[in-house]
Amino acid sequence: MAVVTLLSDFGLRDPYVAEMKAVILSISPEAQLVDVTHEIEKFNIRMGAFVLASAAPYFPPKTVHVAVVDPGVGTKRRSIIVETKRGFYVGPDNGLLMLASHKEKIIKVYHIVNTKCMLSKISKTFHGRDIFAPAAAYLASGISPSEFGPAVQDYIFPEFAKPKAGKGEVVGAVLHIDGFGNVVSNLAEQDLQKAGFREGGSLSVMLGGKHLVLRFCSAYGEVPSGTALVLVGGSGFLEVAVNQGSASRMLGTKVGDSFRVSEVA
Amino acid sequence: MAVVTLLSDFGLRDPYVAEMKAVILSISPEAQLVDVTHEIEKFNIRMGAFVLASAAPYFPPKTVHVAVVDPGVGTKRRSIIVETKRGFYVGPDNGLLMLASHKEKIIKVYHIVNTKCMLSKISKTFHGRDIFAPAAAYLASGISPSEFGPAVQDYIFPEFAKPKAGKGEVVGAVLHIDGFGNVVSNLAEQDLQKAGFREGGSLSVMLGGKHLVLRFCSAYGEVPSGTALVLVGGSGFLEVAVNQGSASRMLGTKVGDSFRVSEVA
Amino acid sequence: MAVVTLLSDFGLRDPYVAEMKAVILSISPEAQLVDVTHEIEKFNIRMGAFVLASAAPYFPPKTVHVAVVDPGVGTKRRSIIVETKRGFYVGPDNGLLMLASHKEKIIKVYHIVNTKCMLSKISKTFHGRDIFAPAAAYLASGISPSEFGPAVQDYIFPEFAKPKAGKGEVVGAVLHIDGFGNVVSNLAEQDLQKAGFREGGSLSVMLGGKHLVLRFCSAYGEVPSGTALVLVGGSGFLEVAVNQGSASRMLGTKVGDSFRVSEVA
Repeated sequence: MAVVTLLSDFGLRDPYVAEMKAVILSISPEAQLVDVTHEIEKFNIRMGAFVLASAAPYFPPKTVHVAVVDPGVGTKRRSIIVETKRGFYVGPDNGLLMLASHKEKIIKVYHIVNTKCMLSKISKTFHGRDIFAPAAAYLASGISPSEFGPAVQDYIFPEFAKPKAGKGEVVGAVLHIDGFGNVVSNLAEQDLQKAGFREGGSLSVMLGGKHLVLRFCSAYGEVPSGTALVLVGGSGFLEVAVNQGSASRMLGTKVGDSFRVSEVA
Repeated sequence: MAVVTLLSDFGLRDPYVAEMKAVILSISPEAQLVDVTHEIEKFNIRMGAFVLASAAPYFPPKTVHVAVVDPGVGTKRRSIIVETKRGFYVGPDNGLLMLASHKEKIIKVYHIVNTKCMLSKISKTFHGRDIFAPAAAYLASGISPSEFGPAVQDYIFPEFAKPKAGKGEVVGAVLHIDGFGNVVSNLAEQDLQKAGFREGGSLSVMLGGKHLVLRFCSAYGEVPSGTALVLVGGSGFLEVAVNQGSASRMLGTKVGDSFRVSEVA
Repeated sequence: MAVVTLLSDFGLRDPYVAEMKAVILSISPEAQLVDVTHEIEKFNIRMGAFVLASAAPYFPPKTVHVAVVDPGVGTKRRSIIVETKRGFYVGPDNGLLMLASHKEKIIKVYHIVNTKCMLSKISKTFHGRDIFAPAAAYLASGISPSEFGPAVQDYIFPEFAKPKAGKGEVVGAVLHIDGFGNVVSNLAEQDLQKAGFREGGSLSVMLGGKHLVLRFCSAYGEVPSGTALVLVGGSGFLEVAVNQGSASRMLGTKVGDSFRVSEVA
């Protein structure tokens, strides 16, 4: 029973997510459906890419991930399948799939053009249902990705999430504010090791325009309630958090703010 | 493995949806459960009917849909099963099920009275769990709808979603504001064809008290970002949208507002 | 196919819930996953305990419930499995699991220490994914709870939800405000019977500082729209509600307010 995950910016009020699931189950009745999230901010490709990249590594091999954050639907942007060493990603060619699939090593990227693998009627407004959901269902049923269309080389690869790491300093950006108000960067554990930072000491953090000196902890509970700290969060990225509080509210941080970490002077 | 869908105005904070799923899986462990949405506005039967009617056509034949938007729970309103050419609808007799089931052609409507097909203890406040969920589970297990009670003729059929279409003009109403702020009408594709409207030209749209002249597009991206347009959306109904923006916010539109389309004078 | 339920305060925007599901399906591919809710207020153990206790009785025997409302993650609070007469509860040792499992009769409580039953890398910030989800998946696969660690006696048992009931009066507290604004107490049906209260009459209710005389109904629709009433709700606890309205908004009630019921003087 193949797992098919769904991620979108559709929210859960509208019938859109259910329509995608209905299409998938009509083609592949045994598929095990799992929502990653449908609460991505409208058209926020970077947030979608981050959340997908966070969740994907935990799914079983051969999982098919469908992701739809798609401001260009109905224009000439391509529909693609990314085949990686672990599974498949289906969605628009706008960078959304690349953070997750790059981590798993991309084998090939296919342009979906075979109309036999789509719904019989293709709307120009909802490729999630008409193109991506059927593609995911056919992949889950064992159809080869090469059946959907030609391999392409010139797919879009996003610029975000390429932090610069050097000795004693790493420079990145805020990728995500989670539901607890934790401020998550694109700085991965290996970037921190490369710069020589170790849990237990203090770090100098420039977050947007604010300068902070924070303890580099391994758990939120290591500082008193209401106190800010820095730690590698569950997704494997460095984050600023407040024990039992909201760092983003306390510091006024937004997605896209710069996030620079260096030794305490 | 039968698909059972769930729609309600319960939201996802409370245990209600989980209780319904628990009851269904206790009776029919193999059921494949899919949420349509639980974010219908409290007691908004029209919105519930619209969302159900939008999603239902994509589900496989024999799907059982349970829908609960039920201001009259605990009063004398009946509990019903609608058998259609494609599947089954279970819920209160208040019009909620009729938009979707009418589209699929109604075979028979049954009044649920057989207490053997209900939970042993029936609360007066939560028929979703005590009556509708068990009925859906038994239907998914292959029990005939005639086992639940007598067929009835005098079920409630809703007045909404009966637009008037003529040559050069169609008159309907706003059925739904989706999560993108798109303003969705009850005007279907065939109504527009009947009136002689074709994508590519401009249309005169009266929305609530506002008069607009909008391009009749086939994709949101055909107008500049921030510009309003009119198009047939993913659900098959005419909508006013703003490319990468919110039409309902820009125009102050609410569900129930009139939606009249005519040729540009 | 074992049912595994999930409850948390994670919300649905972040990848956390999906990561837990991914871990469960990687270990136990046949598990039937059901969300109880992920909208528990951040760190509100009492609300989590209440919602879990409301939903759990409806699930099939042998269901495994994973619940994560965990302000002490990363500190010394223990991870536990509660084995009851009906199923299993997995989560932090902070009282969250006890309201539900006490109702079902606790057989034994185990401290999870066996690292073979955890993810290979244990973060200090996300035990839901790294410890609880794998434990739930192994339990769903039939592994005995004694494989996870030693039985313990000194687990935390919460003080909330122990109402005092006597002849002619019951004294409790507001446990929960549901999505309809209904104000739900910790007063169970048996408490009311013990005090001699019967549906149909009127009751004197002290809610926070407010004194009300309300009809003790068996259905919301028994009073006019907009009128307050008191009734035993779907979860089996006494609640104050407003027919087609929000009691919590009308009365300004909050979780934790006192809820005292007595005969009308």
